[in-house]
Amino acid sequence: MSANLIVGQSGGCTAVINATLAGVLDQATAEPGVNGIYGMLNGVQGLLDGDVVDLRAQSADTLSRLRATPSAALGSCRFKPDEDQCQRILEVLRRLEIRYFLYIGGNDSADTSSRLGRLAQESGYELCVVGLPKTIDNDLPFTDHCPGYGSVARYLAISTLEAGLDTEAMRRFDPVKIIEVMGRDAGWLAAGAALGKREDADAPHLIYFPERHLEVDRFLDDVQSVYDRLGYVVAVVPERITDPRGQVVARSAEPTFVDAFGHAYFDSPAAYLVQEVQARLNLRARFDKPGTLQRMSMPLASEADLGEAYLCGRAGVTHALRGESGAMVTLVREAGETYRCGTGLAPLDDVANSVKLMPPEFINDQGNFITPSFLEYARPLIGAPLPRYARFERKRVVSAQP
Amino acid sequence: MSANLIVGQSGGCTAVINATLAGVLDQATAEPGVNGIYGMLNGVQGLLDGDVVDLRAQSADTLSRLRATPSAALGSCRFKPDEDQCQRILEVLRRLEIRYFLYIGGNDSADTSSRLGRLAQESGYELCVVGLPKTIDNDLPFTDHCPGYGSVARYLAISTLEAGLDTEAMRRFDPVKIIEVMGRDAGWLAAGAALGKREDADAPHLIYFPERHLEVDRFLDDVQSVYDRLGYVVAVVPERITDPRGQVVARSAEPTFVDAFGHAYFDSPAAYLVQEVQARLNLRARFDKPGTLQRMSMPLASEADLGEAYLCGRAGVTHALRGESGAMVTLVREAGETYRCGTGLAPLDDVANSVKLMPPEFINDQGNFITPSFLEYARPLIGAPLPRYARFERKRVVSAQP
Repeated sequence: MSANLIVGQSGGCTAVINATLAGVLDQATAEPGVNGIYGMLNGVQGLLDGDVVDLRAQSADTLSRLRATPSAALGSCRFKPDEDQCQRILEVLRRLEIRYFLYIGGNDSADTSSRLGRLAQESGYELCVVGLPKTIDNDLPFTDHCPGYGSVARYLAISTLEAGLDTEAMRRFDPVKIIEVMGRDAGWLAAGAALGKREDADAPHLIYFPERHLEVDRFLDDVQSVYDRLGYVVAVVPERITDPRGQVVARSAEPTFVDAFGHAYFDSPAAYLVQEVQARLNLRARFDKPGTLQRMSMPLASEADLGEAYLCGRAGVTHALRGESGAMVTLVREAGETYRCGTGLAPLDDVANSVKLMPPEFINDQGNFITPSFLEYARPLIGAPLPRYARFERKRVVSAQP
Repeated sequence: MSANLIVGQSGGCTAVINATLAGVLDQATAEPGVNGIYGMLNGVQGLLDGDVVDLRAQSADTLSRLRATPSAALGSCRFKPDEDQCQRILEVLRRLEIRYFLYIGGNDSADTSSRLGRLAQESGYELCVVGLPKTIDNDLPFTDHCPGYGSVARYLAISTLEAGLDTEAMRRFDPVKIIEVMGRDAGWLAAGAALGKREDADAPHLIYFPERHLEVDRFLDDVQSVYDRLGYVVAVVPERITDPRGQVVARSAEPTFVDAFGHAYFDSPAAYLVQEVQARLNLRARFDKPGTLQRMSMPLASEADLGEAYLCGRAGVTHALRGESGAMVTLVREAGETYRCGTGLAPLDDVANSVKLMPPEFINDQGNFITPSFLEYARPLIGAPLPRYARFERKRVVSAQP
């Protein structure tokens, strides 16, 4: 049997998931022990239909641009194969004489990979399954952080700082802005929006986290209080947050959609909170919801993140060739003053379906901002220093005053 | 009387309005005929209260970073002074011995500047009023384009291309994306989203314009038709668009807010259209609404736009010193193969309260995309070539198929 390798991408896309793929391709190409290098189109969902491409046949021009291309070049999926579908997937893999199965994804993908590996083993098919971490949500356990997170954090840090300058300038007309960011269960992205803040005047002024409840009355008090101090307010809220009764904060508490994994999607909390601010505080408010733009921006990607994503791809191939099946590559932060990060391994089963929330020490007591410990943890992940913007000294010319 | 100069910023902020301010400051500082250089805080609204800063007293560090700082460093306003307020503003100007009044803004600001100039003249106060163009909406007449537009167009071109890669990769789960962009009356920004598209697979696939009605049934047919062809769809809609009955396309046809100029604001058309796509086409859809982020991004700003904004600032001071009152600086595209742009002048009265819509030849017959003439007009405005992203050849490996 040939030692063929297949790689797939799964779950929500990121700016750096193709850098991981590029790492896989570069390492696999350099390994004499690897014959065919294949790609699943749209992950295991495409594999079920035999949607496989030959990655050795792609043009040099395409391959050279892969690392700096956001999104998943192979296509992605959100698909949980059942037992029967897993068996059909294994048939396709056998037909292609695949020995190394690399799957780039988050918790759900780790679960799928783990089940495929177990079923292969049970049927005596020598398949080495290795997971490669990917999620902007930064919520995988056993890894210091997740490839994809640093880039969205950089995007949100810069964008929030910039949106704050807009709100500051428009304070006499539009004094309140709410920025809705991704993150349904964990507040890592919401927290990342603070990474550009240098002084009190800078945005954001308030951050709310899925790990804490948002009480609308408390939120309005917080907004009023910042407004009284600064004359304008930028608040960051996650795409899903519940109130103390456990109800989703939105115009309607009913989900608008439930996906194949049972994840429920709700109407925008920001749209609702803007209404409440206008109606109850009588302050004009607006919201920005960058949506998928936040996870796709290559100009705002973190070079550190791109480099680590690539590193994970290369490490995955090395581990697979060593026969270390059933594991996910992790990022391991080295001790010392200067930030350095290497890779390690964690069992796929332990990663699957588990979520790493923000630790309590990263959220302040009031539950409306991050702590300095979070900044210490996250600053190295967003790469190069952020732009420094000008702010005028606002000392009034006395003779101008009536 | 001293020959003092005052400058203010007004209306919605842009990524380059501070570049115009930097141009004013550089030219004013270089002119021996200018004594004091003052800034209005929050435009004429702040001026009413004597909120004026001495711009010669700002630090060299702040001034050096001004050109690359988005938003309005002096603060902005949306404020239409009445007759009495105009007189009070003139008193403040007299007290400061202002001879040159430079106001950076759009149509409404041109109107305010023009009225102030006329009132000053009537009372024998020698005040030279010059308008400097600024609006992301690109809807000022007499100028080839408006400083601010090229940068948002660049932002939307890159972001839409990237969001398209996301939708393409997620097609088996999330095949429809709607991107809601700014622009209530004119479709220049919606059109700008097309500037990154190189092939049919690239986003956007559909664009709608405030200049045309959006018929929801036709929109759904368009979405279905692109979906049938490509398997995914990215549509760009402006923040306000009406149906053939003249009703705003939104969950509710009632405005959520009406501003000081009588501009009405409505609920998100994208949120509503997403619901319709899901309910009536049974396709999962989501929307991105970058909001103020689109007009604030310095990393995605157009160098051409920044340069032209700066040029307008310098030209404004030169015209003011020549006593050319009651005029707005315009951008004039030079004839020839290579794009070059200089400045001209247009009467403020003619600019005030007038809107330049997209000409019919820039919108296709179906009203759902731009024409090549638009690309020819707009491509030079967005600066450096856009990133080229990789797309794999999707030829299937035959032996993988069941």
